[in-house]
Amino acid sequence: MICVLSGGVGAAKFLRGLRGSNLDQQIVAIVNTGDDDRFHSLAVSPDIDTVTYTLAGLSNDSLGWGVKDETFVAMQELTALGGESWFSLGDRDLATHLYRTDRLNEKATLSEVTAEIASKRNVGIEILPMSNDPVRTRILLCSGGTTREVSFQEYFVKQRHQERILEVNYRGAETATAAPRVLDSIAEAEVIIIAPSNPILSIKPILAIDEIAKAVIKRRSSTVFVSPIVGGKAIKGPAESNLRDLFGDASLVSVARIYEDFASGIVIDHRDSEAKSELESLGYRVLLTDTMMTTRAKEEALAEATVDFAKAGAVN
Amino acid sequence: MICVLSGGVGAAKFLRGLRGSNLDQQIVAIVNTGDDDRFHSLAVSPDIDTVTYTLAGLSNDSLGWGVKDETFVAMQELTALGGESWFSLGDRDLATHLYRTDRLNEKATLSEVTAEIASKRNVGIEILPMSNDPVRTRILLCSGGTTREVSFQEYFVKQRHQERILEVNYRGAETATAAPRVLDSIAEAEVIIIAPSNPILSIKPILAIDEIAKAVIKRRSSTVFVSPIVGGKAIKGPAESNLRDLFGDASLVSVARIYEDFASGIVIDHRDSEAKSELESLGYRVLLTDTMMTTRAKEEALAEATVDFAKAGAVN
Repeated sequence: MICVLSGGVGAAKFLRGLRGSNLDQQIVAIVNTGDDDRFHSLAVSPDIDTVTYTLAGLSNDSLGWGVKDETFVAMQELTALGGESWFSLGDRDLATHLYRTDRLNEKATLSEVTAEIASKRNVGIEILPMSNDPVRTRILLCSGGTTREVSFQEYFVKQRHQERILEVNYRGAETATAAPRVLDSIAEAEVIIIAPSNPILSIKPILAIDEIAKAVIKRRSSTVFVSPIVGGKAIKGPAESNLRDLFGDASLVSVARIYEDFASGIVIDHRDSEAKSELESLGYRVLLTDTMMTTRAKEEALAEATVDFAKAGAVN
Repeated sequence: MICVLSGGVGAAKFLRGLRGSNLDQQIVAIVNTGDDDRFHSLAVSPDIDTVTYTLAGLSNDSLGWGVKDETFVAMQELTALGGESWFSLGDRDLATHLYRTDRLNEKATLSEVTAEIASKRNVGIEILPMSNDPVRTRILLCSGGTTREVSFQEYFVKQRHQERILEVNYRGAETATAAPRVLDSIAEAEVIIIAPSNPILSIKPILAIDEIAKAVIKRRSSTVFVSPIVGGKAIKGPAESNLRDLFGDASLVSVARIYEDFASGIVIDHRDSEAKSELESLGYRVLLTDTMMTTRAKEEALAEATVDFAKAGAVN
């Protein structure tokens, strides 16, 4: 079994690559829920949905979020009514949130609901929310000399991640426990891969749950991460500016330091080869490969190379 | 000012007739909220929405509910997910519920939200929910020798009102108070009209709120009702079987007895002329006219005739 710690878009492509590869192994994705939120009372789980839609062949690749062939009738009408519509939910996408909200109201857990949707969508891998307890990524922003704490979605979607981050907190993580099967999957996996996701906003919320962190630390020799930074740039989203805001630079070394206790291997892009020796001096094994998943074939090649690399270092 | 106690479809047409008539008077509709419910966590107010959509020119006249030119993308997708979709919400209609739910979560009252939507929809009359407190019409059904209590929507939509009613309860009515402007409107109206709505499921929930009942009773001489029964048949919906289940027959006399304390006049259809003397013997003034609102002109004619009739008996 291969276990993947996962955020949204980048992780989803990596998981699709894993599923499409010749590895023929069970895949378990442990997905960040720190971005989960309520909109108009509906329970929205952005990373779980991105992973599910991508694996179901339903992702809207031109938008980068939501469902393909989507309509926005409800949101257009809501705008006409003067409602809050900055977090745009397509009509097909709404069905997911209506279903989830209904099931949660019936006292199903997020784990159960996620598995039900994944099964209906035929995603072919096991998708686990990191926790059934609420963990909420809150971001302390600084603009014009004043600070304020906002939700992940407000920062990411409403403010288009333009403002400077002072601090990120994972509210609830201190008391949250891992969802069912999360700790077992980490313990039993042949290798553990931290997907090319934003380290601060997507992966650290998962590792902020103490028992998950401890489980991964125990498997450090079998854990590798795929760098979300290529040539000093984030492949997608605000990872680069986040790293700069919090660590002063967006270097691979900054990312490597975040994962120091958790991973023993790092997969970086050819164009970052000059960082190799510095990463090795931090104690990492380093794989140089093509990390830009611009085609399905490249997703699969990266997934296979990453798993092989992880296996080579794994001590069980 | 003309004050109308209102359920859904029949009342909405009557209100449209009033607005389109030559009466040139302020119109206030006090609308039943006993059918309100939550679907997938969204706050749905069927009668308020029917009245609003009808007055906004948005009603779906072929379906008899919801919004015209509607799409059902969200519900189709929800069905694909295996979700509960017997209460079908169109995509445009969903916007209303998303807006309402959001505003209620922000601690706005149902009165405020209803006024906001009515204003955005340019309905041109004042729409008041009967109460901002939850009153829920619950129906005790009997089938196959067993009884069970269901919500209004489960009876009406899911079971298609096919089962026998044993009892109807208006849960919460005993502690509910009238929404703002409801009691004043009743007290100040030149005439009060009980719309051609289901007496048991649409109007009695309103009158189940003690202070509303008392206010209408005080205005009995200025209150008339339009019969929802024509030739022993309900114009629409289950009024006829409801009356039969609870009172043994669906006669005008049964309806007239329900409103005895509240109204002094009754508007009936020409084809029910033989009931006139019996209704008069109950103490009612009776207007014989065409009560079938099959065209806009007939809606307006009925509205004008009803107001004139009410004015003729009104004692202020």
